[in-house]
Amino acid sequence: MSLLDDTIAAIAPRDAGAERAARERLDRMTKPPGSLGVLEDVAAQLAGTAGVCPAPLPGPTAVAVFAGDHGVHAQGVTPWPQEVTAQMVANFAAGGAVVNAFAASLGADVVVVDVGVATPSAPAPGFLDRNVRRGTADLAEGPAMTRDEARRAVEVGIEVARELAADHGCLVTGDMGITNTTASAALICAFTGATPDGATGRGTGIDDPTLARKVEVVTRALARDRSTDPLDVLAELGGLEHAALAGFVLGAAAARVPVVLDGVIAGSAALVAAALCPAALEHAFAGHVSAEPGHALALRHLGLRPLLGLDLRLGEGTGALLAVPLVTAAARALADVATFDSAGVTEKA
Amino acid sequence: MSLLDDTIAAIAPRDAGAERAARERLDRMTKPPGSLGVLEDVAAQLAGTAGVCPAPLPGPTAVAVFAGDHGVHAQGVTPWPQEVTAQMVANFAAGGAVVNAFAASLGADVVVVDVGVATPSAPAPGFLDRNVRRGTADLAEGPAMTRDEARRAVEVGIEVARELAADHGCLVTGDMGITNTTASAALICAFTGATPDGATGRGTGIDDPTLARKVEVVTRALARDRSTDPLDVLAELGGLEHAALAGFVLGAAAARVPVVLDGVIAGSAALVAAALCPAALEHAFAGHVSAEPGHALALRHLGLRPLLGLDLRLGEGTGALLAVPLVTAAARALADVATFDSAGVTEKA
Repeated sequence: MSLLDDTIAAIAPRDAGAERAARERLDRMTKPPGSLGVLEDVAAQLAGTAGVCPAPLPGPTAVAVFAGDHGVHAQGVTPWPQEVTAQMVANFAAGGAVVNAFAASLGADVVVVDVGVATPSAPAPGFLDRNVRRGTADLAEGPAMTRDEARRAVEVGIEVARELAADHGCLVTGDMGITNTTASAALICAFTGATPDGATGRGTGIDDPTLARKVEVVTRALARDRSTDPLDVLAELGGLEHAALAGFVLGAAAARVPVVLDGVIAGSAALVAAALCPAALEHAFAGHVSAEPGHALALRHLGLRPLLGLDLRLGEGTGALLAVPLVTAAARALADVATFDSAGVTEKA
Repeated sequence: MSLLDDTIAAIAPRDAGAERAARERLDRMTKPPGSLGVLEDVAAQLAGTAGVCPAPLPGPTAVAVFAGDHGVHAQGVTPWPQEVTAQMVANFAAGGAVVNAFAASLGADVVVVDVGVATPSAPAPGFLDRNVRRGTADLAEGPAMTRDEARRAVEVGIEVARELAADHGCLVTGDMGITNTTASAALICAFTGATPDGATGRGTGIDDPTLARKVEVVTRALARDRSTDPLDVLAELGGLEHAALAGFVLGAAAARVPVVLDGVIAGSAALVAAALCPAALEHAFAGHVSAEPGHALALRHLGLRPLLGLDLRLGEGTGALLAVPLVTAAARALADVATFDSAGVTEKA
């Protein structure tokens, strides 16, 4: 069996007993029942993933920023030059990007993974060269990559998740790739049935003519015949970082470590992971909902409620990182808060 | 002049120059302009409050939980016995409540202030006895307190803010008081013109007959003639913890320390603070919007956009604490992130 098959085979649903125990404990805690809102769901999910109630505190957090380039850049769907992907990889390695600032603020580790950047990067601490291909082909004209490349990129994500899970209790998805919202829109249409018009957004902030071109490109790509096999769809329309992110979600689920998803890139990659193994998403949280319209469509399809809604549209893992303190706080509450009995607090009549 | 008058006189609007410098810096940072969404507003506000760009990192956080009891409990507007207020004060002091777990998770300090609890509490670390009155009178039947008591409770909040601001860079509002959503609803109606029906909610979770009684009580209280002077409105309809929270917001603003507001209790108290000194609210963040309907009405009136929406309805400062990492991360990004020039990243065409 391949690493991908092994990983899928290792993924189990959340533990219903631990989750039920968490719900019962939440109801006995010194607070009105249900008053922690969404965080009660978070706490119960953490117990279900850990298989024990209370779940252990998530512990150190790591964000993996998967970077890749996109042949569809040739279609003029963004005002940013392609070399910005590699420049931002260098910026991540130097600690100068927003993801670095947020990670520093929250005490999280940052790992940058070249899974598909067009040009090689210099070695640096926290940088992993796992390049599968130097950028995808143009998805407007034909398959973005081969099925074998897609699988290898998925397996890069699995390996990185496995490595990070060895000494981290919470994994966070990050991404960098000029034009990767175009591939995301195509994946979201393919997996959810959304229209290119509804799923395609302004990404980093494009003007009306560029948006019209982007919608046309997505429409053209979707018009080609394609297999419904998830890996084939990924190879046809996705990016190498999307593939790695799908693997990262699978790898985290197999390791039974909670994974917090960032924005539309992670959301579209999660659709691939869910198609390969629906139970994988039981261990994921949607960190936020981005300003990109396809993201909300993806989350609805996945049945995930975003923890934050701050109109972010940056990527890199920034929105997901901001949600980590919510996950940690929910775990802490489940573990630490006194019950009515233990605290001598009278329950309501 | 009184402490209240002195404090109001010391409050200045945000520094427009520092805020403009922050906006300019945010546009030069290695990210698409505007891509940090709401956090760009947070970062700019922090610079405006600090009067310098970048603003210093907010530093240690303290949540002050102001506790008080309410004579309106006699009207049967909650299934919880009044002694739960004092029991929860003991729970806070023992570290067993959700606010303690969240504060521990985020590294924040907790201070519990008895400003109006019906029964005295034992001394404990982090507990401040600043009791002004052993619970309010029944606001359904007449003024909840005297104007002098309201002012003294406001000044308790100012003093606590001033003390905490000496060694904390971010202040967080917390509250405890069985039945305090009733007083909150009355204040929100008085200050925003909302109807009792629209502003009154289920608080900790009450049934339909209790909710009807609560709406009727708020309606009856509002039907009395009253002065429009903010302190008079507060004395007529508010709670002692509402008064202290209003003072806390004023005290934080006077000290130019950002203050993060919790739910409907803080929101209604902030209406008092805004009526006393509109500029005070320029230094406040709405940590979250609670499930209590009056809260959104109060925030709209104050022009504050909540950072979180997690259907919390617990109080204690829990929702505001969860928003603190967002504020800190925004400050960190403003201070640390490289610019396009400094990082050698190409800007968009």
